[in-house]
Amino acid sequence: MANEESENRAVYLGTFDPLTLGHLDVITRAAKLFDRLIIGIGKNSSKKPCFSLEERLEMVQGACSDLNNTEFYSFSGLAVNFARQHNALVMVRGLRTEADYVYEMQMAMMNFTLSSEIETVFIPTRQDLSHISSSLVKEVAALGGNISRLVPDLVFENLAKRFHIETH
Amino acid sequence: MANEESENRAVYLGTFDPLTLGHLDVITRAAKLFDRLIIGIGKNSSKKPCFSLEERLEMVQGACSDLNNTEFYSFSGLAVNFARQHNALVMVRGLRTEADYVYEMQMAMMNFTLSSEIETVFIPTRQDLSHISSSLVKEVAALGGNISRLVPDLVFENLAKRFHIETH
Amino acid sequence: MANEESENRAVYLGTFDPLTLGHLDVITRAAKLFDRLIIGIGKNSSKKPCFSLEERLEMVQGACSDLNNTEFYSFSGLAVNFARQHNALVMVRGLRTEADYVYEMQMAMMNFTLSSEIETVFIPTRQDLSHISSSLVKEVAALGGNISRLVPDLVFENLAKRFHIETH
Amino acid sequence: MANEESENRAVYLGTFDPLTLGHLDVITRAAKLFDRLIIGIGKNSSKKPCFSLEERLEMVQGACSDLNNTEFYSFSGLAVNFARQHNALVMVRGLRTEADYVYEMQMAMMNFTLSSEIETVFIPTRQDLSHISSSLVKEVAALGGNISRLVPDLVFENLAKRFHIETH
Amino acid sequence: MANEESENRAVYLGTFDPLTLGHLDVITRAAKLFDRLIIGIGKNSSKKPCFSLEERLEMVQGACSDLNNTEFYSFSGLAVNFARQHNALVMVRGLRTEADYVYEMQMAMMNFTLSSEIETVFIPTRQDLSHISSSLVKEVAALGGNISRLVPDLVFENLAKRFHIETH
Amino acid sequence: MANEESENRAVYLGTFDPLTLGHLDVITRAAKLFDRLIIGIGKNSSKKPCFSLEERLEMVQGACSDLNNTEFYSFSGLAVNFARQHNALVMVRGLRTEADYVYEMQMAMMNFTLSSEIETVFIPTRQDLSHISSSLVKEVAALGGNISRLVPDLVFENLAKRFHIETH
Repeated sequence: MANEESENRAVYLGTFDPLTLGHLDVITRAAKLFDRLIIGIGKNSSKKPCFSLEERLEMVQGACSDLNNTEFYSFSGLAVNFARQHNALVMVRGLRTEADYVYEMQMAMMNFTLSSEIETVFIPTRQDLSHISSSLVKEVAALGGNISRLVPDLVFENLAKRFHIETH
Repeated sequence: MANEESENRAVYLGTFDPLTLGHLDVITRAAKLFDRLIIGIGKNSSKKPCFSLEERLEMVQGACSDLNNTEFYSFSGLAVNFARQHNALVMVRGLRTEADYVYEMQMAMMNFTLSSEIETVFIPTRQDLSHISSSLVKEVAALGGNISRLVPDLVFENLAKRFHIETH
Repeated sequence: MANEESENRAVYLGTFDPLTLGHLDVITRAAKLFDRLIIGIGKNSSKKPCFSLEERLEMVQGACSDLNNTEFYSFSGLAVNFARQHNALVMVRGLRTEADYVYEMQMAMMNFTLSSEIETVFIPTRQDLSHISSSLVKEVAALGGNISRLVPDLVFENLAKRFHIETH
Repeated sequence: MANEESENRAVYLGTFDPLTLGHLDVITRAAKLFDRLIIGIGKNSSKKPCFSLEERLEMVQGACSDLNNTEFYSFSGLAVNFARQHNALVMVRGLRTEADYVYEMQMAMMNFTLSSEIETVFIPTRQDLSHISSSLVKEVAALGGNISRLVPDLVFENLAKRFHIETH
Repeated sequence: MANEESENRAVYLGTFDPLTLGHLDVITRAAKLFDRLIIGIGKNSSKKPCFSLEERLEMVQGACSDLNNTEFYSFSGLAVNFARQHNALVMVRGLRTEADYVYEMQMAMMNFTLSSEIETVFIPTRQDLSHISSSLVKEVAALGGNISRLVPDLVFENLAKRFHIETH
Repeated sequence: MANEESENRAVYLGTFDPLTLGHLDVITRAAKLFDRLIIGIGKNSSKKPCFSLEERLEMVQGACSDLNNTEFYSFSGLAVNFARQHNALVMVRGLRTEADYVYEMQMAMMNFTLSSEIETVFIPTRQDLSHISSSLVKEVAALGGNISRLVPDLVFENLAKRFHIETH
């Protein structure tokens, strides 16, 4: 197997509060595209997260257990610094909607300004998952809606417990 | 007159804090399109509303007094559940701008995921009303701007009282 | 059954060269929303169509044979005139992408200027069909691509014949 | 020199918390387009600003010291009222992204409703500055990123002090 | 009156095939913003125009007869060269829709690349005129639609003659 | 060196009529991201190209002579078939503007429908190159504009000859 120097390493960062099937779709495809995918789970979102860092890390790792070229870390600080620390030259971002696009382009340009050696690549989310966001999932779950088709099973169980949803 | 079974019933939901001429335009046209239009006024917005639920309900009912196939209810919870409870198969949404469009498509897809028998239809807002939003109306009123051309008369009087605007 | 006066009648217009699963999705849903759906098939597109008017009419009728409140006509001239001739007050349009949205809003505003009594309503296309357009279908078929998942069976057979695609 | 009556006067308003190179680009070009450019610095943003009104005013004035047809004022209240008070008939707005565009069009239409004699003109931001926003600059600075290429030197020094960034 | 050197001169270019009320709205407002507005009428569009250069020039001049700081020329070649030849440093563009915006930004950036001393400014079209384009006007006129609310009177008469529309 | 099986191979397709600095930016970055980049030059565009296939191939190869993991082929037919023939699982696309985005997402979804094993990844074009398109370059060159900052030197020389532009 290639050593770290010659590997094509990419990072994928998010808050994952919680991981959705949209995230998992991007992760699964990114893991095929690059030799190694480093997944960073954001420590401190400005809003208080619904799940703790440990819970989020556990859910992401659990959902990705079949992917053998992924690694998982918490992170804080600048995304480009996380990439540098992990010897990755690629930052993977999922693209769902046109609103995403505008924001993501701004971030890509900012990251390029901060660190011109790191490339951003966008992976389009599968059409039938493009309406899913973590915040919408939590909102629907809080209102008692059935979010079983929006998140991995493990996440669904955690959300069901958190929001007292009947699962059977 | 048709009974509820055979009627083509639609719901139109919002916070209406306060009702604008844009909302009223959508309501008036939706009331022509469907046999019965059920208007739902959201109980609990995440932000504290400017007007109480009772005040908002009263303003919406007052402004719609000429439309004889409309009904008015408060609601909380999932939009699709409100539609089901009122035997409506259609959810009406106004479309003002392209930013609206992206958000509304996401919600339509989510509602379709939650309840595939309920259809979302979009009604484009009249061009000369497309810049009006409840939050912008309140912001302008709070700064003393003349919002008389943005809201129904009844709402204007209430806003004038609330924000101490001179009306004559 | 209601007579024409009291019926809620809508028109859905297109060139349908050829009908796609996206069109059929909009038709199926519109037929549920309105008492009667009048489908107009455009006679003269500016570009020479791939299928003749008769072929297109036949394919649309064939694909809609299960919907018993639909009617089919060819049309030329202004869309609002077609609606008036068929006593319809509603013009149904499908919305696939944000690019659609900008164009469709322009047409809705123009139609409102030409005939203020006719309402445009937009029906969002199902997410997994939103990438399908008649022109893209023809382009892919011409290059030998498998378009069986993009159009109704009847249309697929016609396209296969036209473009000499092996179907088994 | 022309007196105030015959001068073509424009206003450019913002919170400038802090001034970025994007703002400065718009200011520099607007100062060429109009006889006089009145810059208004917003007193009360809804969010607590990072820099005080005095600090922001000082930074804007300092960065514009080469432009001899600019004036600087704090402002609160409606933008159209500020323009009227300063005998300006033009409101200048920078355009960076498509998201900007939707919001800015809404504001332009609202301002036109509030005061039809005041014209909004949009100036496109230079491409290589279009990813810069005050809030993103602060976010990056707070995480220790190098924002020296995003803001004028004077602003950089102030941000460096505020966020304890090493500048050499 | 100021001489050409100190005047603030702007150009507004188009094919004007034909002039619409949207164009006239932009012209009227630009004529207020700048000392002199040079209107350029494109000689050779890639598509064969409906009206000859002379007819288009005559219609634009006729519709602008009340504006005493406008000049009219035909043009061909690069827009920035036309601006330079007329000692103008400003290129005025109307903005109707978000689709316009994307195209116009691309052209503004290209013009900046070709001639960095010429500024592009965008003027938003009045909301109730934002659906009007020359090509749509011709399309509707050709189908016999009433375009009297879309173009100046003089243009309406010419279109009526061209497309044999009854005007009374 | 890795054999073809284990290599991470990507394709980048276009008409390149002619290659621009925007294309070259995407190629250069894609060549860093993947083990091998297969560049396909489209044989038959629907519009007659300005440069022959041989000329376009030569210009692309010439401009990429420093990149040692690139290969060059002409192609016709479906993009996914080209990818399959070259054992590539990745299709690289450049993203310049929001208009690009809508079109590119549609194509990505269509390609996913045609061949679910091939992934599309988007690489954002550098901001200062985002206004460049082949068609705009040709349009400007035909009008005598200076396109030396828009295309590689080799392409500039060819365009200068073709459009009789003075180069010194």
